[in-house]
Amino acid sequence: MKPREDRITAWFKDQRRLDPVTFPIGIGDDMAEIRLGQAASVLITTDMLLDGSHFDLRTATLEQAGYKAMAASLSDCAAMATIPLAAVVAVALPPGFGTEQLKALHAGIARAADKYDCPLVGGDITSWKGSHPFAVSVTMLSRRADNAPIRRCGAQAGDVICVTGSLGGSVYRKHLEFEPRVKEALRIAQTVTVHAMMDISDGLSTDLNRICEQRGVGAVIEAASLPISDDARRQPDPLKAALDDGEDFELLFTLAPDEGKRLLQAWEGPVAITPVGRIAEAEGMWLRTLDGQVVPLEPGGYDHLKD
Amino acid sequence: MKPREDRITAWFKDQRRLDPVTFPIGIGDDMAEIRLGQAASVLITTDMLLDGSHFDLRTATLEQAGYKAMAASLSDCAAMATIPLAAVVAVALPPGFGTEQLKALHAGIARAADKYDCPLVGGDITSWKGSHPFAVSVTMLSRRADNAPIRRCGAQAGDVICVTGSLGGSVYRKHLEFEPRVKEALRIAQTVTVHAMMDISDGLSTDLNRICEQRGVGAVIEAASLPISDDARRQPDPLKAALDDGEDFELLFTLAPDEGKRLLQAWEGPVAITPVGRIAEAEGMWLRTLDGQVVPLEPGGYDHLKD
Repeated sequence: MKPREDRITAWFKDQRRLDPVTFPIGIGDDMAEIRLGQAASVLITTDMLLDGSHFDLRTATLEQAGYKAMAASLSDCAAMATIPLAAVVAVALPPGFGTEQLKALHAGIARAADKYDCPLVGGDITSWKGSHPFAVSVTMLSRRADNAPIRRCGAQAGDVICVTGSLGGSVYRKHLEFEPRVKEALRIAQTVTVHAMMDISDGLSTDLNRICEQRGVGAVIEAASLPISDDARRQPDPLKAALDDGEDFELLFTLAPDEGKRLLQAWEGPVAITPVGRIAEAEGMWLRTLDGQVVPLEPGGYDHLKD
Repeated sequence: MKPREDRITAWFKDQRRLDPVTFPIGIGDDMAEIRLGQAASVLITTDMLLDGSHFDLRTATLEQAGYKAMAASLSDCAAMATIPLAAVVAVALPPGFGTEQLKALHAGIARAADKYDCPLVGGDITSWKGSHPFAVSVTMLSRRADNAPIRRCGAQAGDVICVTGSLGGSVYRKHLEFEPRVKEALRIAQTVTVHAMMDISDGLSTDLNRICEQRGVGAVIEAASLPISDDARRQPDPLKAALDDGEDFELLFTLAPDEGKRLLQAWEGPVAITPVGRIAEAEGMWLRTLDGQVVPLEPGGYDHLKD
């Protein structure tokens, strides 16, 4: 079944038809695009991260929370192969949160901002009345590279499905430390024609389903090909972890088989690109297991609004 | 004493020097400005609104919360005399918040979006783990009108200080229903040269102090001139309410006396413009009381981070 989050997003999208000249990309992609005059445009993404959901301040530092909040938005810039430009950050502070806590948070924000050349240009600081957890919202702007922004909606039957890096078990470590694939996305877009791309934030099975639904196509994933991470191998079911775990923040993209070959030949690490399956004409997702059976693959990732 | 919020903002600003070509306006104004290529630029503002602080969902509806969240950002666009362009909204949902609640919130967002021609183009929906209050973060983009964006930093000794509308007692009603002064700001900027402008979100005394500190100037406010709202008159001390109450979301601006005269002659309602005092050469703020005494005026408005 379609995640509840996606049904809500679709409802929001249907409420207003945006003028496609001013808003070439609207609700439902990793970023929206807004045209400014004849030659310029800007893309925008927003993310809300909550203590207890996206990080746990009993074990994670505020520096890590600040880094992750920025990195999650940088990953959206990567998902469309765009160039990060600037960020604003709004925070809701629990009682007792003072200057020292804000400086720790800022250190993490600045670490990501410096590394990806995406400065903090503004923000808002507010405090809870009462004892409620820390929340941080990052909104990021990016701009087009030479390529057009790569959307979720272009997958074609026969396309190779690829991912960067390795998948699963992000909860152990990677979700606080990941490197958004900004450079990799731009290199991919410069090298080949990509039909559809997004970042894996809610799990491969859930996010691939989103790409498939945009075009009414299906997919077959090869279990033998999946780049299962070392941390996924610590889980009881490593394959399921690689398919369903959220917050990998790797790139998921589809392209014509010839282009896939060209990309793999031209690609030089350090981040791996792995073909993991094919886009199929018929709707539905399938998994070819290690013993060669083809079984249905359900979107099993994270649904932020599950009933 | 300087509000703690302002000290933190100053610290954030000092951490990184932004490239002034790409970022003509950075941290510390109502919006930041980001240049895109030769001819285009975009401005950005972000605000976090919390249940229990900025509205109370025991008495306010989600529709009102959605409207207020958008209107607060629209007021930032007005504060710089810029044209609203698009908004993104991120929300943190308490347990039990479902489709109906999101639709009510959306109705309020859409009411403001439609009225001010500033569509919702994207967002993020996430849920608290555990029982925590609703939070909503709006980030808004605007673009330059024919005028340059009006900043907080241009006040000059001798300037007339003006406000739109009436002040104080916003908590009774206006803070949920206010009309951001987008049109009025643009008309003012088209009519005269304004030296400094912002919107009154934390109270006249606190926000005027911010304008003064930017240039090391002072101010004298005339109690007899203050447009005290009907709701401020319901308070024990109406004058204090007009000086210190937050969330009026009126415009506060300074301009040369001749320009002030020209503006008042040219201005046609329905929103009033009232001269309330003068910018002085010496630092510090003063109030001329109704009996003609001149007494010190402290920034007595809302400090989001008060110790």
